[in-house]
Amino acid sequence: MDILATLEHFVAIPSWRTPDNPDVEAGVSQFASEVIQREIPWLHVTQQHVDGNRFNVFATDGSPLQILFVGHLDSVPPGAGWETRPTGERVGDRYYGRSSYDVKGGVVALLAALRAVGPTRGIGVLLYCDEEYEFHGMRRFLALERDRAQPALVVALEPTDLRLRTGCRGVCEFRPVVRGKCGHAARPWTGVSALKAFLHGVKALDDFAERHAHSEFGRMTRNIAALRCGQYRGLDGDRPLLAEDSNIIPDYASGVVEVRTLPDMDADQCITAFEQGVRAAGGRLEVAVKRLDFRGFQTPRERVAPFTEAVAAVLGKVEYEEIGRSGYSDIQLLATQFGVPCAIIGPRGGNMHAPDEYVEISSITQLQRVFERALQPHRVGVETPHTIPIQHTAA
Amino acid sequence: MDILATLEHFVAIPSWRTPDNPDVEAGVSQFASEVIQREIPWLHVTQQHVDGNRFNVFATDGSPLQILFVGHLDSVPPGAGWETRPTGERVGDRYYGRSSYDVKGGVVALLAALRAVGPTRGIGVLLYCDEEYEFHGMRRFLALERDRAQPALVVALEPTDLRLRTGCRGVCEFRPVVRGKCGHAARPWTGVSALKAFLHGVKALDDFAERHAHSEFGRMTRNIAALRCGQYRGLDGDRPLLAEDSNIIPDYASGVVEVRTLPDMDADQCITAFEQGVRAAGGRLEVAVKRLDFRGFQTPRERVAPFTEAVAAVLGKVEYEEIGRSGYSDIQLLATQFGVPCAIIGPRGGNMHAPDEYVEISSITQLQRVFERALQPHRVGVETPHTIPIQHTAA
Repeated sequence: MDILATLEHFVAIPSWRTPDNPDVEAGVSQFASEVIQREIPWLHVTQQHVDGNRFNVFATDGSPLQILFVGHLDSVPPGAGWETRPTGERVGDRYYGRSSYDVKGGVVALLAALRAVGPTRGIGVLLYCDEEYEFHGMRRFLALERDRAQPALVVALEPTDLRLRTGCRGVCEFRPVVRGKCGHAARPWTGVSALKAFLHGVKALDDFAERHAHSEFGRMTRNIAALRCGQYRGLDGDRPLLAEDSNIIPDYASGVVEVRTLPDMDADQCITAFEQGVRAAGGRLEVAVKRLDFRGFQTPRERVAPFTEAVAAVLGKVEYEEIGRSGYSDIQLLATQFGVPCAIIGPRGGNMHAPDEYVEISSITQLQRVFERALQPHRVGVETPHTIPIQHTAA
Repeated sequence: MDILATLEHFVAIPSWRTPDNPDVEAGVSQFASEVIQREIPWLHVTQQHVDGNRFNVFATDGSPLQILFVGHLDSVPPGAGWETRPTGERVGDRYYGRSSYDVKGGVVALLAALRAVGPTRGIGVLLYCDEEYEFHGMRRFLALERDRAQPALVVALEPTDLRLRTGCRGVCEFRPVVRGKCGHAARPWTGVSALKAFLHGVKALDDFAERHAHSEFGRMTRNIAALRCGQYRGLDGDRPLLAEDSNIIPDYASGVVEVRTLPDMDADQCITAFEQGVRAAGGRLEVAVKRLDFRGFQTPRERVAPFTEAVAAVLGKVEYEEIGRSGYSDIQLLATQFGVPCAIIGPRGGNMHAPDEYVEISSITQLQRVFERALQPHRVGVETPHTIPIQHTAA
């Protein structure tokens, strides 16, 4: 299997959500199904319907799962500021393109390893939807496989620069609306700036993170992804109508707050901390709409020892990635649901979720060899390849 | 002249700018013209056309000006959160209503004093437009009277709680657009938050204010009147289209920054300080559109001694208001243009530019007596009142 050609094909198919592309990773899922059918025909491919034309690709040989490999197929949108082509461009060892590093490079390494090792028993592959958005893909998988797929080990693909991670931070998102009091800009004491109160909420969240810093997990971080502030003048549809008169202290601030929590934290704790800060600055938290609230998880390292040995054998050493520098992965849902050990690994690269995302092609090959090594114990005698038709799970 | 009835009438006429009321203070200007014509008929009223149906009311007896009293007629909009009627409601000694304190209560005190003292010589009254918005009214007056009205003293109405002020801070407004770099929220080091860079700019501005704090003037303050932050996705008409994906570090922040400067500062200094902060945080100031740039002014206190004596005689003492707690007043344009001493005074009240603005009725009476005292030296023998027709200055 030609790694570069496969990667090029994967990256060239858009897999982000836009009004023009409501089915997000539908094209990639279809391509992945075809690759598995063609290159790894000893796996049965099931297309699990998620919504619209979106589906997870789940491939197994039907026997009890020893290792379930999982990777998502969607990506964030390209955004502005690219100097390379978001749909793929090779420059030396780097392959640029949205989703190249997060996480199609890893998917290609996995498929190439499965192809190279040949027929296995007890190996499953889940290539799923919607990791970057609403987690519908993983939820759908769990709903369908709750009582069937009980893997002994999960190996998940995420961009880790060939480091191993055995857990992830949680994520919560809330959208606070903070109210202050208008006043005259020349007399700061006559009003309560809603922006100031909002930022005091953020500061309180940072203080909370500092108090709960953890030697192994690192620390909670937060992103103010969006903010709107001004003088409230009622509603324009369902959006607040905000005036921007420069001489009036603003009484309204709303924003999108996303927090990467440590495994023992949740959204309510974050909102409580935020609200205390808002109140301390004289503001009022009118509402905080929770959009996400997923906890992190941690697998003790010794529980993924067989996979760790494959990493050590191929790369010569095992480097661990600090959980506190991890993103959330909906692998947490898997880990929690099945209570199985989870190891997370992926290729080297850079600019994840940013312009000029890239993966290092050589690291895909290294990762392929790690997977091959991990697959060795699960090989069976060579069977005659035959194409098994793709199955479909209805909505 | 019935102070309360006149105040009620003044406050009941809307004098703020809305799409429904593009002529802002036109109704108030008309009413003020009529009151002067009826109650103070020894003054010639000139309506100075400003724009649309808006005009300044300028009233003099035609002789060289000894004292020019000035007050603006417009106000900021009522905004949300009122518990009393923005168009006027008396509760005990308080008269609630938008513009009651800033500054119609003072205007009523002045008109009542002029009426009570009777004919004077060398006294002028300028009731003008657009102090809260673009200063078109004062600019129009200066353009028309540049070579004619050279008052010996200007007494300006502003809400000062019967304290005397002899200068004002300047004001500048700029609208910065700050760019950062998108990145993954879970990996804060992969991006540069435009919000963080913007707020570093604000912090640098605050540090600048701290370094230039002045024992007499106090200190520069600033208001972030509005802010928009998110992930830039191009333009929607002339507004940036900002996405709010929670897991992406925002690369765009724009806002409305208004600064109340000390007399020796201007907008460029503020923008320079802001930009240094933005850069220190890894961001880039793409543009900073200057909207306002007016310096402050200061009259040495001894130069307004005659008026100070009137204050002391009536109120029993003179309290000074710190310039550093003042707003900008376009009286600065007058002070600078004519190079004459300016004293600023107004009634007691509260909630200026905020909900439930009010003026204390008893303080209007006190202020009236101060003005009467100041007018005494300028009385002439009683003349037969006769109505002089209002003059109009064309655009």
